[in-house]
Amino acid sequence: MPFRTSIPVRFGDVDHAGIVYYPQYYIYFHEAFEDFFNLSPYSYFQLLDKERIGFPTVHVETDFKQPLRYGDSLDVAITVKRLGGRSLTLLYEGHRHHDGVHCVTAQITLACIDLDTFKSRDIPDSLRELFTRFSS
Amino acid sequence: MPFRTSIPVRFGDVDHAGIVYYPQYYIYFHEAFEDFFNLSPYSYFQLLDKERIGFPTVHVETDFKQPLRYGDSLDVAITVKRLGGRSLTLLYEGHRHHDGVHCVTAQITLACIDLDTFKSRDIPDSLRELFTRFSS
Amino acid sequence: MPFRTSIPVRFGDVDHAGIVYYPQYYIYFHEAFEDFFNLSPYSYFQLLDKERIGFPTVHVETDFKQPLRYGDSLDVAITVKRLGGRSLTLLYEGHRHHDGVHCVTAQITLACIDLDTFKSRDIPDSLRELFTRFSS
Amino acid sequence: MPFRTSIPVRFGDVDHAGIVYYPQYYIYFHEAFEDFFNLSPYSYFQLLDKERIGFPTVHVETDFKQPLRYGDSLDVAITVKRLGGRSLTLLYEGHRHHDGVHCVTAQITLACIDLDTFKSRDIPDSLRELFTRFSS
Repeated sequence: MPFRTSIPVRFGDVDHAGIVYYPQYYIYFHEAFEDFFNLSPYSYFQLLDKERIGFPTVHVETDFKQPLRYGDSLDVAITVKRLGGRSLTLLYEGHRHHDGVHCVTAQITLACIDLDTFKSRDIPDSLRELFTRFSS
Repeated sequence: MPFRTSIPVRFGDVDHAGIVYYPQYYIYFHEAFEDFFNLSPYSYFQLLDKERIGFPTVHVETDFKQPLRYGDSLDVAITVKRLGGRSLTLLYEGHRHHDGVHCVTAQITLACIDLDTFKSRDIPDSLRELFTRFSS
Repeated sequence: MPFRTSIPVRFGDVDHAGIVYYPQYYIYFHEAFEDFFNLSPYSYFQLLDKERIGFPTVHVETDFKQPLRYGDSLDVAITVKRLGGRSLTLLYEGHRHHDGVHCVTAQITLACIDLDTFKSRDIPDSLRELFTRFSS
Repeated sequence: MPFRTSIPVRFGDVDHAGIVYYPQYYIYFHEAFEDFFNLSPYSYFQLLDKERIGFPTVHVETDFKQPLRYGDSLDVAITVKRLGGRSLTLLYEGHRHHDGVHCVTAQITLACIDLDTFKSRDIPDSLRELFTRFSS
């Protein structure tokens, strides 16, 4: 079962070719990821600042299939594709809201780190439960 | 005597109306401000991280006169308009590079703060010399 | 009666001093402005693309009073402070959501233009009604 | 022979974890790509607006190896890894300027399109020469 959210394209998100500038998709995905954490015992902010745990991006694979324009929204579905001890891979599927066209597929691998040392650490059990719930 | 630099408009800096998205001008001005500090005893980074001094923006007044588009650059001139004990006001004049048209005038007031306490503090003498050199 | 909305601070919105990077406030204000238009006969997108009417920013005055950090939201209230024939001035008041502290006040003047010619034009009657409803 | 440039990390490029926000790398890569085109018969702007040819990103693979912080620059080397008839794959290698540490490797595949139809088209000969010159 994926986590689903929808992100409106904003006036400044486009590039000179008139479509969403592709780095902006990663900002959309991160916003969706932050919203996903609202289902966890902590917000992403609390995870970072109280628990001192972070999830930096270590690997990205993305297929951009169709453009997205101002006036539309991106429907984002997040699935946990792989859950390791110290890292996980999220699958992001993005569809244009107005016509359902598949725009983008991204696999983003995150390492779990201790923010005080920037060293890798085990994903805490409280988050494993959340990630398992959204596993494919 | 103003400090002068030139900032190219990048592919993603425009909005859906096809002109530079106006918040982007403040990013350009900050880039020019960072470059300005390369003339000081410290880079802006060193000022922040070694000296623990910061200059947050407290007041902005801007006139946007003409649009700027991809393919052009913004020539930025910075003058210190007012140099107080704990704050200063910078005047930014921005002209389109290709035709010299005046695009934007901004007055940006910065407070000098201690980054550990976020409280206001005196501008250090070593920076007063720099700011005086570029005063109108 | 102001138009009210709330904008969450996102993970990438901060600067090296650990507070929301000040150009980002103008992006927040524009997002609030786009949401405001959802109360109009047209979305902001439709206004631009179907009616070929735009509202570029021509003057900005802003007081930044208190910083905003990741983990918080900005409650934004928009009031129409002045409604002219071909331009209007919006007042944006921003408060930190978690403690209600007043962070920022901005007055942003927009010109009404024909997007095909980039020349000034009268604000259409259908929008005057909306702007009047949110006048102070 | 790679094309080489260096991009300074700017004050607003970091995230709440204090490192360069990963979508920002793609903006750096695009800036490097725009600079690369200054070696061609056209600037990237002219290619888009005069020739009506664009190179949207269709596939991305990236390994983020080490973080990058404010105060540093990213040395970017671009090599053409694959040159097809209607698409090409660029290899971006990014090293931290101050210590030479390898931060990031990205392979970015671009389609050549007609900007009026958004349909794929052959890479023009004048650009094949440029791309061949920087092939690995």
